[in-house]
Amino acid sequence: MRLSRYFLPLLKETPASAEIASHRFMLRAGMVKQHSAGIYSWLPLGYKVMRKIEQIVREEQNRAGAVEMLMPTIQPAELWRESDRYDDYGKEMLRITDRSGRELLYGPTNEEMLTDVFRTFVRSYKELPQLLYHIQWKFRDEVRPRFGVMRGREFLMKDAYSFDIDMDAAVVSYNKMFIAYLNTFARMGLKAVPMRADTGPIGGDLSHEFLILADTGESEVFCHADLVDMPAPGLDVDFETDLQSLVDERTSLYARTDEMHDKAAFEAEVPEDKRLTARGIEVGHIFCFGDKYSKSMGAKVMGPDGREHFAQMGSYGVGVSRLVGGIIEASHDEAGIIWPKSVAPFGAGILNLRVGDEACDKVCEDIYSKLGTAGIDPLYDDKPDRGGVKFSRMDLIGLPYQIIVGPRGLKDGIVEVKDRKTGERQNLSPDAAVKFITAQFADMSI
Amino acid sequence: MRLSRYFLPLLKETPASAEIASHRFMLRAGMVKQHSAGIYSWLPLGYKVMRKIEQIVREEQNRAGAVEMLMPTIQPAELWRESDRYDDYGKEMLRITDRSGRELLYGPTNEEMLTDVFRTFVRSYKELPQLLYHIQWKFRDEVRPRFGVMRGREFLMKDAYSFDIDMDAAVVSYNKMFIAYLNTFARMGLKAVPMRADTGPIGGDLSHEFLILADTGESEVFCHADLVDMPAPGLDVDFETDLQSLVDERTSLYARTDEMHDKAAFEAEVPEDKRLTARGIEVGHIFCFGDKYSKSMGAKVMGPDGREHFAQMGSYGVGVSRLVGGIIEASHDEAGIIWPKSVAPFGAGILNLRVGDEACDKVCEDIYSKLGTAGIDPLYDDKPDRGGVKFSRMDLIGLPYQIIVGPRGLKDGIVEVKDRKTGERQNLSPDAAVKFITAQFADMSI
Repeated sequence: MRLSRYFLPLLKETPASAEIASHRFMLRAGMVKQHSAGIYSWLPLGYKVMRKIEQIVREEQNRAGAVEMLMPTIQPAELWRESDRYDDYGKEMLRITDRSGRELLYGPTNEEMLTDVFRTFVRSYKELPQLLYHIQWKFRDEVRPRFGVMRGREFLMKDAYSFDIDMDAAVVSYNKMFIAYLNTFARMGLKAVPMRADTGPIGGDLSHEFLILADTGESEVFCHADLVDMPAPGLDVDFETDLQSLVDERTSLYARTDEMHDKAAFEAEVPEDKRLTARGIEVGHIFCFGDKYSKSMGAKVMGPDGREHFAQMGSYGVGVSRLVGGIIEASHDEAGIIWPKSVAPFGAGILNLRVGDEACDKVCEDIYSKLGTAGIDPLYDDKPDRGGVKFSRMDLIGLPYQIIVGPRGLKDGIVEVKDRKTGERQNLSPDAAVKFITAQFADMSI
Repeated sequence: MRLSRYFLPLLKETPASAEIASHRFMLRAGMVKQHSAGIYSWLPLGYKVMRKIEQIVREEQNRAGAVEMLMPTIQPAELWRESDRYDDYGKEMLRITDRSGRELLYGPTNEEMLTDVFRTFVRSYKELPQLLYHIQWKFRDEVRPRFGVMRGREFLMKDAYSFDIDMDAAVVSYNKMFIAYLNTFARMGLKAVPMRADTGPIGGDLSHEFLILADTGESEVFCHADLVDMPAPGLDVDFETDLQSLVDERTSLYARTDEMHDKAAFEAEVPEDKRLTARGIEVGHIFCFGDKYSKSMGAKVMGPDGREHFAQMGSYGVGVSRLVGGIIEASHDEAGIIWPKSVAPFGAGILNLRVGDEACDKVCEDIYSKLGTAGIDPLYDDKPDRGGVKFSRMDLIGLPYQIIVGPRGLKDGIVEVKDRKTGERQNLSPDAAVKFITAQFADMSI
């Protein structure tokens, strides 16, 4: 993409309303614009990052055997009356009446709706397990939306739902999502720690939250330090095998948010030098709640024993739009964002320090074309601004690599390559620069 | 995908409520489930087709130089008061009041919202043209939602918006979308005819609808027969060149819907043997409306003359979810859907006529793996049903090719390949079948 044809409206001033780094940088870098409290437009740069995150989530859901579908944003109120959550949800639920007086709502989650799909079509244990997901906008009318997209009202969530014949099978589905989540967050460059969690309005008694550690996190967390550095299971995990030991390896170590924290247990279970207290941002939450919805909504299947059984269910959420902010909280410096390669909106930036200079233009066009062909998706700063503007703009938007092309270097046949994360700079020929950057993207394993 | 692990809930009976072929087949093939009038879940098969359509739309928008972003579904009412459309829109607009008493609405379109984005950030003609689009769910509270996804209330639309310094430049943007639309629909196997259109509540006086011809179309259309068979401009069109002559080639021939039809002009301009009267389904609509929104909402830029100018705007819609139905209307037979290759949910179906038979299982697994590697994305019917069930199921869901693997053929080392569209069958070795099908997908040009 040529910057001259892109829509990247940067702000010079940091908006006073932005309390945390991700909110500040997302506004300054022209990633979002707020229209109403907690309701945002995703401008091209922000949208591109969100799509990359969404795609990683999708690939890892598919790898775990979940099947994608899409439920609507608007739901009929009757479904929520059946499960008895319509009144429970309180003012957080955006309630709507249509032109015919029917009561609708903007879905804050989809347990009821997918249970309705399931009970319409599935009759026999032979059609189980079912593990379905969608990636759809949700609305929760928060009393105090804040921190930009971290606590928005309209937000993008991946939510999966599992249906099994009994609790043993339900735990198998739960474990698939548990492991898929570890890989998902690792692919985004995040260290996400699973913690025993309260189930809240979703219900059930088996539940884990996945938190990334960051100073601005909303929860205080207490965990065994080894959990933070434990590597993800990896993309070659066979989801058809028993995953229990992989799950146990993590859940056997103490890790809880303040809501569930038990000081005595923490001190008894964790040696003093391994006791980690930090702040965390919730990026995923999984639940196994048995027959809570299948019972109230009548989602039954015929079992191998010839009798009807309520489906044993779980639900599994990832905050896709929230992750955009979460990744920035975990990865930035004074100058701006530092995108992990896997979610960077563009792989590299090309800075033409003298637009209009024949040699600079030619080399930039050549690098632009070659990086494009190599699948790096470069952003070419072809605007007639001075160097200082270009340097700080590129640092702010945080692409992993910068290629700086100026007339002085070109006299010696070199361009400068800067690594945004380490700040390391090296002088290379234009072709070597292309080769170097392409090589950095060749290995995207976790 | 293995059918045994997929969620494909077929209906045996045709629901009485379904009046047209696409609605009937989408319900029978387990593509959608209705939750409330005009509000649907997209089950995995339907969702996959919609995603493919969305991706074609996206690629052609990008090719034309439009930049993707995403606006929220929920909008503040004040924006629509500024443009004076809040009351105009009537009961079709889904109005919402949030917990703090603020008036919101579920966006039926986004002229106001993007004009708000534009006026916030763009100050100078140097930043023009801007051509931005998003693909987002909309809601229109239709008095009588019907025909399945063809006239739903919650529907997916691609809407683009252009901002230019003057009307001449605005027409350049308009022409880009005009040509991009012809290529977009052609890639989906559709013959879409641009017709002079009424601008309705959007405004302006330059507008074209794109209609595909189908017996069940909601509008009567009158056009020069040559328009129907005119080939699309092609994917090698250079959008930076003057596209006026490509547009004129089409617009110079008579083509109007009943709303705009002028019998005298039709008969004067079109020779009798070229007068085509048919029914059509609107799948796209483009508008050039000048300063209608920029003036009421104060979206001005500094011009090269040092004075402020209202941006000259256009908007450009494609009905993404509606196209799923539109394509089925244009391409089906008695037995079911016939997907064009470019939007088929899976490239080919593999029918194992004797699951459990060692030879059949082995050959099917081998074909499944090879087609997968070749990027054909096959659906493997590995369910223990009898042949008749498998044949009619595969015909109903309409994948372009079927590979039928049975013990009798395998004795002679052959499988049967069926072309869903032509019904042609050929006996081939398993490897030749894979090769044949792979070759059919090699050329996806329009």
